[in-house]
Amino acid sequence: MKKIGIVGGTGYTGVELMRLLARHPQVEVVAMTSRGEAGRRVDDLYPSLRGHTDLVFSDPGEADLAACDLVFFATPNGIAMREAPALLEKGVRVIDLAADYRLKDLDVWSRWYGMQHASPEWVEQATYGLPELYRDEIRGARLVANPGCHVTATTLAILPVMGVEWIDHERIVADSKSGASGAGRSAAVHTLMAEAGESVRTYAAAGHRHQPEIRQTLAAVAEREIGLTFVPHLVPMVRGIESTVYLPLAGEPEDLQARYERYYAEEPFVDVMPPNSHPETRSVRGNNLCRMAVHRPMEGPMLVVSSVIDNLVKGAAGQAVQNMNLMLGYPETAGLEMVALSP
Amino acid sequence: MKKIGIVGGTGYTGVELMRLLARHPQVEVVAMTSRGEAGRRVDDLYPSLRGHTDLVFSDPGEADLAACDLVFFATPNGIAMREAPALLEKGVRVIDLAADYRLKDLDVWSRWYGMQHASPEWVEQATYGLPELYRDEIRGARLVANPGCHVTATTLAILPVMGVEWIDHERIVADSKSGASGAGRSAAVHTLMAEAGESVRTYAAAGHRHQPEIRQTLAAVAEREIGLTFVPHLVPMVRGIESTVYLPLAGEPEDLQARYERYYAEEPFVDVMPPNSHPETRSVRGNNLCRMAVHRPMEGPMLVVSSVIDNLVKGAAGQAVQNMNLMLGYPETAGLEMVALSP
Amino acid sequence: MKKIGIVGGTGYTGVELMRLLARHPQVEVVAMTSRGEAGRRVDDLYPSLRGHTDLVFSDPGEADLAACDLVFFATPNGIAMREAPALLEKGVRVIDLAADYRLKDLDVWSRWYGMQHASPEWVEQATYGLPELYRDEIRGARLVANPGCHVTATTLAILPVMGVEWIDHERIVADSKSGASGAGRSAAVHTLMAEAGESVRTYAAAGHRHQPEIRQTLAAVAEREIGLTFVPHLVPMVRGIESTVYLPLAGEPEDLQARYERYYAEEPFVDVMPPNSHPETRSVRGNNLCRMAVHRPMEGPMLVVSSVIDNLVKGAAGQAVQNMNLMLGYPETAGLEMVALSP
Amino acid sequence: MKKIGIVGGTGYTGVELMRLLARHPQVEVVAMTSRGEAGRRVDDLYPSLRGHTDLVFSDPGEADLAACDLVFFATPNGIAMREAPALLEKGVRVIDLAADYRLKDLDVWSRWYGMQHASPEWVEQATYGLPELYRDEIRGARLVANPGCHVTATTLAILPVMGVEWIDHERIVADSKSGASGAGRSAAVHTLMAEAGESVRTYAAAGHRHQPEIRQTLAAVAEREIGLTFVPHLVPMVRGIESTVYLPLAGEPEDLQARYERYYAEEPFVDVMPPNSHPETRSVRGNNLCRMAVHRPMEGPMLVVSSVIDNLVKGAAGQAVQNMNLMLGYPETAGLEMVALSP
Repeated sequence: MKKIGIVGGTGYTGVELMRLLARHPQVEVVAMTSRGEAGRRVDDLYPSLRGHTDLVFSDPGEADLAACDLVFFATPNGIAMREAPALLEKGVRVIDLAADYRLKDLDVWSRWYGMQHASPEWVEQATYGLPELYRDEIRGARLVANPGCHVTATTLAILPVMGVEWIDHERIVADSKSGASGAGRSAAVHTLMAEAGESVRTYAAAGHRHQPEIRQTLAAVAEREIGLTFVPHLVPMVRGIESTVYLPLAGEPEDLQARYERYYAEEPFVDVMPPNSHPETRSVRGNNLCRMAVHRPMEGPMLVVSSVIDNLVKGAAGQAVQNMNLMLGYPETAGLEMVALSP
Repeated sequence: MKKIGIVGGTGYTGVELMRLLARHPQVEVVAMTSRGEAGRRVDDLYPSLRGHTDLVFSDPGEADLAACDLVFFATPNGIAMREAPALLEKGVRVIDLAADYRLKDLDVWSRWYGMQHASPEWVEQATYGLPELYRDEIRGARLVANPGCHVTATTLAILPVMGVEWIDHERIVADSKSGASGAGRSAAVHTLMAEAGESVRTYAAAGHRHQPEIRQTLAAVAEREIGLTFVPHLVPMVRGIESTVYLPLAGEPEDLQARYERYYAEEPFVDVMPPNSHPETRSVRGNNLCRMAVHRPMEGPMLVVSSVIDNLVKGAAGQAVQNMNLMLGYPETAGLEMVALSP
Repeated sequence: MKKIGIVGGTGYTGVELMRLLARHPQVEVVAMTSRGEAGRRVDDLYPSLRGHTDLVFSDPGEADLAACDLVFFATPNGIAMREAPALLEKGVRVIDLAADYRLKDLDVWSRWYGMQHASPEWVEQATYGLPELYRDEIRGARLVANPGCHVTATTLAILPVMGVEWIDHERIVADSKSGASGAGRSAAVHTLMAEAGESVRTYAAAGHRHQPEIRQTLAAVAEREIGLTFVPHLVPMVRGIESTVYLPLAGEPEDLQARYERYYAEEPFVDVMPPNSHPETRSVRGNNLCRMAVHRPMEGPMLVVSSVIDNLVKGAAGQAVQNMNLMLGYPETAGLEMVALSP
Repeated sequence: MKKIGIVGGTGYTGVELMRLLARHPQVEVVAMTSRGEAGRRVDDLYPSLRGHTDLVFSDPGEADLAACDLVFFATPNGIAMREAPALLEKGVRVIDLAADYRLKDLDVWSRWYGMQHASPEWVEQATYGLPELYRDEIRGARLVANPGCHVTATTLAILPVMGVEWIDHERIVADSKSGASGAGRSAAVHTLMAEAGESVRTYAAAGHRHQPEIRQTLAAVAEREIGLTFVPHLVPMVRGIESTVYLPLAGEPEDLQARYERYYAEEPFVDVMPPNSHPETRSVRGNNLCRMAVHRPMEGPMLVVSSVIDNLVKGAAGQAVQNMNLMLGYPETAGLEMVALSP
């Protein structure tokens, strides 16, 4: 059993990591830190974990994270960049679920996250944790930057046609809808049930941090500039992201359905549905799949892909466990085989 | 007090018409028909109307609709085209909330609605009931085709830039999200709470009836062909539509905010919000407004407009009452001044 | 037009007062105070009010509340008891929507609210604002204590049988379910959408502040001690309270349905439904009704009453406006005639 | 691997059985029948099962259920009583998830279910499938009647104090709230999202089938008549039941918390929370636990227990798998160890 630490365990990605790791056959979570909840039993804060763990939150300063084989940072942006390097230098492998190591261009990063980066040397060494693209690099990585939630649903929906000639790479649109857990477990007015319930709205329509992250990946694959308009929406549910992407055709495409099926044929966590399907977010609730369907409305000049994930699983903790499995040499699906909860 | 009839009063547009007309100062609903509920008190089916009406559903064959000044058809598609002409010929004015008279091209209509039209001569005479475009024609109309719900939110968001040179009219995208009441009050599996709750999905991604309806209006205004990809989504709420439209820029635009504000300056039921706003569907819950915000993400080549309505009000019954007010010479806002219910 | 002030206008009862008063034919809101939002337009915080008000939040220290005819306190507990007396002494009439003046027994009050009362002399003079019981006193009152939300639904369901011999007054149970807006518009974790969505739970099962308030009223009517177990629940919706009360029979009752109908026959805002009804909270969404149904399961020894209100209307702002109408001599239903929003 | 059949696999208990059995280490589902969907892949109807099963729905007349070791009936009431006996006589063991074999008194059964029983001889032989009470009998049973959902949450909350002298067994109240999946996957109006969303209501307040089922079990344990008022409510969520039970004290009780903890100390699927807890339905979402908390409000004369389950798991399919494990000699928790999905 490898030893695992979780820094910042009180948020939703923290409890979701615990949900997945508590039943993982080959690892043991030995430390979960929290400044605010140190000394409190984890299952007191999260009764869903009663019977599955006896862990007590430990103070970040006192937890022996250096004794772990791998540490997850489930912290707000700006923490891992300061605290991960010390662990990395001691040989601990790190997966950051925040955004600190996602963008390679530090100027872009600073503009969107409003801080100077504290460990730029590690940005370069970090591997972007999208296994469908970077599986081999992840296996050997010391530091993995786990992708964002909207990013995962959107990027996977677009990847199979990046670089082809019959796609206009300049006018891609991604309209993404997220449940409220994506906003995290922080006291806030705008995500109160009485504010976010029974209502839909856009947010950050003028520009969202996930846009440059998606573009970075797509541009690397397409080997050209990407024009992407990305608008996120808050919908009244707890879990789930549906991203509908609109890709203008610049010529006659090959068989789109076949292309998508072929592209993801070997992927354990991407499911291309049959023609004429409409994936529901609930069909992946609680599991690590990205499920998608491909449409070309009225045989016209637009490719439409609808892609769904559970934002806390494939969009965060599940993908992080998938990355951990790769890094530690376990089967990629270990601890992630559960059936989605539907209805 | 003018006399009003409602044909097919058991659905959501029927009860919503009653909600609005029960408090309207100048009209009286004298008949509400229903084949299945004839003889039952309206407020027995809809307890929210208790104390506001003593009406009893009458059998369609027995109601004296010819004695009405105006009759609303709140029926499924294909009823008004058979039943409205007899009333029209007797001088009764008609507003059809279904799709029978919305599309001018009968071939297109037949393809999408799967029937032959029963009264093509009236299609030609029908006025499309979007007051923001056809106010004067509606005043004198004998037959008004009330627009679809997704259609209203989407069309109003696009209208202000139709025909301008700096908009690419070929690659317009509309991503529209609707609450479950849009599917109507018919026993069905896919809109059960246990199916549609806590989940988001696309539907009719390969082509939806509202697409040709939107295109017809836009093309008439722009005086050119319109390329539009329209994808509707079902989101887990009861009321509300949010439509996000993506309009590629084909040149340097004029001040977009100013253009939208100017375009709708005199409209009582369109509200262009200040820059950097994100309209919420709840901000129009229960009232007849279409509220929208204009964005140009990162000053790039895309105009993004987010537009919200209550699908049962501005998307159906409210707009129908607005049309009735115009037809009967009342103030356009009569009976429609309520404040939205938020939270 | 009488002049109205609202102290503490940023919460849900504040915006709901504005929603109701903006359309009230005989009053004008001239001041809305907020420490945190002073200088901001009210409709910027609450876009649902756009077009209905030009008010700007004013600093509590600067608003000329003494010039008002009547002032609503929509503040947290503990504010009105300090600030209302100065206004009262200047002849301004006051309705407190918080709990400061609800309980006559100051010891009980202090125990539940954890403070010393700052104006005990006004507690005595305050009239409890339940019009169905204290209509005449409210007309002449200078200070009205508006009842709590759970309290209103529960008390009205029990009142018609208080004091009768065939009810066991010792073992009354009230199981009350509230939507999340009842918790107010304060940043908090436990009422986040991601916490309160798709879940039901009890709260304060060991004792809730509303219990002594309900008992005080019932005991006054029954003229005996009341044994009441009251357990509130949080259910995943925005608005609405359903309270199911269980009253053990201590003898053969008279016709329960008839008794309830008779008791509320003249009440404009209480609707006793026909036998075998099951009131839905949505049937009173946005309006001031308390709607209830009476059952005696299997003709056994228990009277069961299910009572629904909109917690923000009859449970708060609507009842406050009803009280205002009485105090200012207007028709009791002025500004409160809207039809509920259903679906 | 034992062979398992599921009769009537298209409903929610059917798909939930598949979710659980697909990952069960010791059984294999070899047949799933459906009259309406015969020939269709199971994962086409339930995309959440894609990748977990290749089963095709088979016609009830053609499936070789007699070759199964155990067959689940996930059918509407009235099917198993006609079809199970033939299988039982061939030595197949049966678990009925419907109500056919739950009530021992056939007159009571007929009154509530409106039919004559087709196999009364098997009613007598059936074992009631509540493992916490009848574990040993279930191990040897040929036919198990799986308890109802409200029943399970309510009965488990009351059991620990049945028969004690300080509980008044005559005036027990159970107020139970269920999500919409409890109504099943049949086209219906009253459980549409647009009807059941954002609203709470009672149903069957005059008497519900689950009342005699709860009473039967409690009376057997208490060895006396039970007076129980049971009122179910529909709340706007998909999964989950919260049942609050009110037990009048007839004398000074022993330590209630200790009694409950002791009573369930060895139970793998009942979790008595620490004092002052408020269980949330989400804390058991997707798993087989019944979680409860014990209160005595203000040290008064009422014991209050709040009990939560997932209606589709411990309230249906999970409890059925628990029973299957007992019948087939597997560890009771096999296939049921998953962590609840929270948030």
